[in-house]
Amino acid sequence: MRRIILSIFTFVLVSSIVSARNYTQFVDPYIGTGGHGHVFLGANVPFGLVQVGPTEMTRGWDWCSGYHYSDSILIGFGQMHLSGTGIGDLGDIALLPTLDNRQRSARFSHLAERVRPGYYSLMLDGSGIHVELTATQRVGFHRYSFPADTKTGRIILNLKQGIGWDKMTSAGFKQESPTVVTGFRHSSGWAKNQQVYFAAVFSRPVILEKQENDSVGIFSFTNHNESVMVKVGISAVSTDNALKNVEAEIPGWDFNGAVAAANKAWNDELGKIDIQTDNERARRIFYTCLYHTMFAPSIFNDVNGDYRGADGTVHHGDFVNYTTFSLWDTYRAAHPLSTLIHPTRQRDIAATMLNICAQQGKLPVWHLMGNETDCMVGNPGIPVLADIALKGYNVDKEAVYKALRQSAMCDDRGLNLLKKYGYIPTDLDSTYETVAKGLEYALADACVARLAKQLGKTEDYKYFLKRSLSYRDHYFDKRTGFMRGVTSKGRFREPFDAFKSIHRQDDYTEGNAWQYAWLVPHDVHGLVKCFGSEKRFAAKLDSLFIVDGDAGEEASPDISGLIGQYAHGNEPSHHIIYMYDYIGQPWKAASKLRYVMNNLYRDSIDGLCGNEDVGQMSAWYILSALGLYQVEPAGGKYVFGSPLFKEAAVNVGNGKTFRIIARNNNEQNIYIQNAKLNGKTYTKSYIYFQDLKRGGTLEFVMGPHPSKFGTAVKDRP
Amino acid sequence: MRRIILSIFTFVLVSSIVSARNYTQFVDPYIGTGGHGHVFLGANVPFGLVQVGPTEMTRGWDWCSGYHYSDSILIGFGQMHLSGTGIGDLGDIALLPTLDNRQRSARFSHLAERVRPGYYSLMLDGSGIHVELTATQRVGFHRYSFPADTKTGRIILNLKQGIGWDKMTSAGFKQESPTVVTGFRHSSGWAKNQQVYFAAVFSRPVILEKQENDSVGIFSFTNHNESVMVKVGISAVSTDNALKNVEAEIPGWDFNGAVAAANKAWNDELGKIDIQTDNERARRIFYTCLYHTMFAPSIFNDVNGDYRGADGTVHHGDFVNYTTFSLWDTYRAAHPLSTLIHPTRQRDIAATMLNICAQQGKLPVWHLMGNETDCMVGNPGIPVLADIALKGYNVDKEAVYKALRQSAMCDDRGLNLLKKYGYIPTDLDSTYETVAKGLEYALADACVARLAKQLGKTEDYKYFLKRSLSYRDHYFDKRTGFMRGVTSKGRFREPFDAFKSIHRQDDYTEGNAWQYAWLVPHDVHGLVKCFGSEKRFAAKLDSLFIVDGDAGEEASPDISGLIGQYAHGNEPSHHIIYMYDYIGQPWKAASKLRYVMNNLYRDSIDGLCGNEDVGQMSAWYILSALGLYQVEPAGGKYVFGSPLFKEAAVNVGNGKTFRIIARNNNEQNIYIQNAKLNGKTYTKSYIYFQDLKRGGTLEFVMGPHPSKFGTAVKDRP
Repeated sequence: MRRIILSIFTFVLVSSIVSARNYTQFVDPYIGTGGHGHVFLGANVPFGLVQVGPTEMTRGWDWCSGYHYSDSILIGFGQMHLSGTGIGDLGDIALLPTLDNRQRSARFSHLAERVRPGYYSLMLDGSGIHVELTATQRVGFHRYSFPADTKTGRIILNLKQGIGWDKMTSAGFKQESPTVVTGFRHSSGWAKNQQVYFAAVFSRPVILEKQENDSVGIFSFTNHNESVMVKVGISAVSTDNALKNVEAEIPGWDFNGAVAAANKAWNDELGKIDIQTDNERARRIFYTCLYHTMFAPSIFNDVNGDYRGADGTVHHGDFVNYTTFSLWDTYRAAHPLSTLIHPTRQRDIAATMLNICAQQGKLPVWHLMGNETDCMVGNPGIPVLADIALKGYNVDKEAVYKALRQSAMCDDRGLNLLKKYGYIPTDLDSTYETVAKGLEYALADACVARLAKQLGKTEDYKYFLKRSLSYRDHYFDKRTGFMRGVTSKGRFREPFDAFKSIHRQDDYTEGNAWQYAWLVPHDVHGLVKCFGSEKRFAAKLDSLFIVDGDAGEEASPDISGLIGQYAHGNEPSHHIIYMYDYIGQPWKAASKLRYVMNNLYRDSIDGLCGNEDVGQMSAWYILSALGLYQVEPAGGKYVFGSPLFKEAAVNVGNGKTFRIIARNNNEQNIYIQNAKLNGKTYTKSYIYFQDLKRGGTLEFVMGPHPSKFGTAVKDRP
Repeated sequence: MRRIILSIFTFVLVSSIVSARNYTQFVDPYIGTGGHGHVFLGANVPFGLVQVGPTEMTRGWDWCSGYHYSDSILIGFGQMHLSGTGIGDLGDIALLPTLDNRQRSARFSHLAERVRPGYYSLMLDGSGIHVELTATQRVGFHRYSFPADTKTGRIILNLKQGIGWDKMTSAGFKQESPTVVTGFRHSSGWAKNQQVYFAAVFSRPVILEKQENDSVGIFSFTNHNESVMVKVGISAVSTDNALKNVEAEIPGWDFNGAVAAANKAWNDELGKIDIQTDNERARRIFYTCLYHTMFAPSIFNDVNGDYRGADGTVHHGDFVNYTTFSLWDTYRAAHPLSTLIHPTRQRDIAATMLNICAQQGKLPVWHLMGNETDCMVGNPGIPVLADIALKGYNVDKEAVYKALRQSAMCDDRGLNLLKKYGYIPTDLDSTYETVAKGLEYALADACVARLAKQLGKTEDYKYFLKRSLSYRDHYFDKRTGFMRGVTSKGRFREPFDAFKSIHRQDDYTEGNAWQYAWLVPHDVHGLVKCFGSEKRFAAKLDSLFIVDGDAGEEASPDISGLIGQYAHGNEPSHHIIYMYDYIGQPWKAASKLRYVMNNLYRDSIDGLCGNEDVGQMSAWYILSALGLYQVEPAGGKYVFGSPLFKEAAVNVGNGKTFRIIARNNNEQNIYIQNAKLNGKTYTKSYIYFQDLKRGGTLEFVMGPHPSKFGTAVKDRP
């Protein structure tokens, strides 16, 4: 063997992994899959209807997405999952590859699991079956590699199981050909009347080996060297449409190609914000957050334009219909972020909302699979739709206004009382949470007023402006400095404990009086006046982050991520820190924002301090890391905070980039010293959407001490 | 969708898993991979040269097979491994699939691992690459499924690494074509001059991306939907032969077919003993033991008949050449089992041993990859070869006798002293262990004497008979009742401590005086006489299982599996319990044998109480579970113990089955009450090989109390 001549032809391929334009590498899909993050784990594409991934048994609140990191048993790979909600649903149309036709679940370990945006891979414990998943918008693409010593492979189609409250009401399936199985699953849960149709296309002939009722089918096939693949198209309309979705989105069997396409889709979306930083941990958190902001709203129509409307019937449209609107959460930061980086989606989101309004008589509150769940309080669809209109997106403002007004003027969910009393009396409303409702309605009403004013509807403007001041005129208690429940006699409800919380059975929603004292994002200066002076407001706001009290044993589990009584783990607190800008003390915001970003967001399984809430928790981080936050619910005033990175380039659409540079930025230099916008000195502590939208460069100089920046009255928001 | 007509065509395929003839299902390959079992884990076929599996870093004694269950990092998948040895070697020609060309090891978890006879599967932690391995006799067959998001897959060829003492001395490789890489690895370790040649045939073109010296090559390829496969042929002769081995054994790319073939090969071999029992645990232990007895000796020639001889040169033969002879262990039970169930291999084993003798001047002691390691003491090749000849296998007895005699008469390893003094004086031998050497030589000499007698070589017979009695004439100390070291002046060495052990630096080998008092398997009755009476012998033997003493801090780690001073974890104890048969007290054997089978063999990772020792520990269990044990080293007298199962059917070759039935057998009924051979009353407490060989039925009736069976002097062995 001395004759072997060693090859000297050596070259190194540059690994695509280290390419500068690969953003998916920074995403850690496990963040938030433990603790109470309730984050979905699996394969999807941005805003896809399909979120295919492991579905575990529902063992409690922490299984809302169908997956909690602590678990090690799955019952299949469902095609759809929620991410970050506080209520479970979906998990529909689950497949489980198995060796044993009696098996209905499988053990697994995270050590045998690998996840990247758009790709999920797992080797099942025991059977050793290797599962790979990817997705397009409407199709879950499964590849199962059975162990080489398998003679007969099996795939269990499970239409019975669902997540959380979800219960199958009827189901059925039919083998259309040796390789095609179609069927449906109707269920009632969080979404009261959910209809899912599917078409499962197998890469090789399968035989229905066994069937249990209408809901479980065990398909078998002879195992060969090739993996078996299944494409599961989903439709809310029909099996025909489900099959069309498969044919249009994944015509062939190139699984790796589908994974690459999903990766590209994610990379394109994540690349809309390019950050420069040496902080790898923060970069990982940032891109994971950005990833999480694009799980919803989810595309909810078929490739041919058919969709199931809020009225339960099938419609056809030339727009992209969406679902999964967790609006009480997402109006705060997720939609304001969306308006910045997803301009082309705004028209479709608006169209979806207007259609829902036409079909159900009001804008969506919490829409899921065409169903209005009426979850949470207020009219959170109003700020979202108003924001799109006020920011100048190409929508019919009159139609928008009509929908806003109609939603604000309907009679359900306490609005009848609001119209009559100007507030919602605690003794007349049967479902509690009257302060939260009142404050949420008030901020929505401010959005209606704003658009009314722009459209010259003066009477309406005055009417809704008045309603938007209910916080001041009714709920604010000057004596205690809190928003309090008010009876029909106009008296504050007694007894009162500012710390106490009884989950969904007191005057607030997932919070206490301390957290709800600040829910006036639409009129911060008005709220300051309630306290008597900026000094007294500041004293109270300072104390929020310090005071310690007992919320009691029945407290809402959503009150989490606490700093004093500031609860970052739940949405009503999200704008509060930025209120310091309104009283000329932005440095107090800066230190707290940095604390929250560094400590309440972690690159770990339980890295979120509360439910992800369908992207809202993450969107807060994205905007805050950019140094921007839209406190006022609609219109586009982004208040400055403390930018986290050296530089961030935001693709704001139309080929424009808005660049945010923070010179001398580091862990100590957290305070803005001065700013330039497109080279010119900029003194305001906020910037308008239109200035962001046209592109340009905002250049901050950061320093270790508070500066005068943003303190002059004229420069405050 | 109401139109769906649910299919009612349902049928159940009978799972092949529950087929009665599937023996591989009872094998748990993990047994003995933890603790100190040193068992190989991976894919191989019975007696194959290739044992392909994960190779971990050598972290200590427990990594002799390259794999210890406690570990979680592997450095590749080597083509060859030892199983159960106390010294590490092999691990040659390792492949590691990777995403990152800087990676040289991979984390893994047993939760992502699945192993069945002839098949190994693992999902690597981190990279998510799915590895599957199978084997033929001379080829390791690898299938790597890279994650679907992989663009460039990489396979590291590592010729540098080895296990234990093994160090590469030279290596090289050459890319012969886009899909073929050949090369060699020469190393020095336990085997001083090991030569391995290989041919790696890839299922798709690979490019040499990077090379480190002559010993590491990183090959890359573009990842597609298909898995990449590699067939690694191994030869000790040349790369051409390695390639021929691939072409002959795995001409195509049917990986699953190769797995099925490996499974069939195992099933055929395991099916040679069919047991009937309700004890699933014991069945699992039994078939795992049977599996472990067939890892060695390993086939050690090429498909064309070429092999590398003990003289280091290439030979050609028309027989199957073997290697990995752990004879000091395996002459005791593994070879006596082999002569029963592997009749067609005996001629080749004998031919291999005779050739080795011709090439190196003596029979193998511990042969590894054509190298004589001279490991352990005595002449353990003699009983193995003599046994084959005495049992009537078709070998040239004169040639066999010549080899036995030559080995017994050479001058190395203390034999010169033995020839001069009749024993090995402790003060003249430089390597200790003189008592162990003397006793091992004595039992080998008894085998030589026996064949000499049969061949009518009277002088030789007398000479070797005399030598076989050295235990009595020299080592046995009547005063203490132990075998002791003797000086050249004929005095017992002082000081003497029957409990003390200093590993490999005292008069015994991996044991103390208590364990070596019994190493006279060739003349048990003679040993009894040394003690003065059966009663005194029995008293001493009883005490063996009770006495407790301190072996000291430098004791051999091989003294394990202790019951008193009986050490089941090491081989010199293996025949001891059966000695009770020789003094008419078989019931004392029965209870102890059951205790050992039930407690010192467990169906767990650390289920072996000592090193597996290349099948010997397992072979003890197989024979003991059948109720048989060959105490006397050659000739075929199998002594009865306590059969563990209701029934065992042993395929003894030539279409014959020997059936052992144990009526009323259970956990309490452990004592043989009476026996019938082929329907006739049988009173002897032993049976000859020739009676087993011709097939038939041995029927025991078991009971809860000792019986008269085997107590009469004429019925004892």
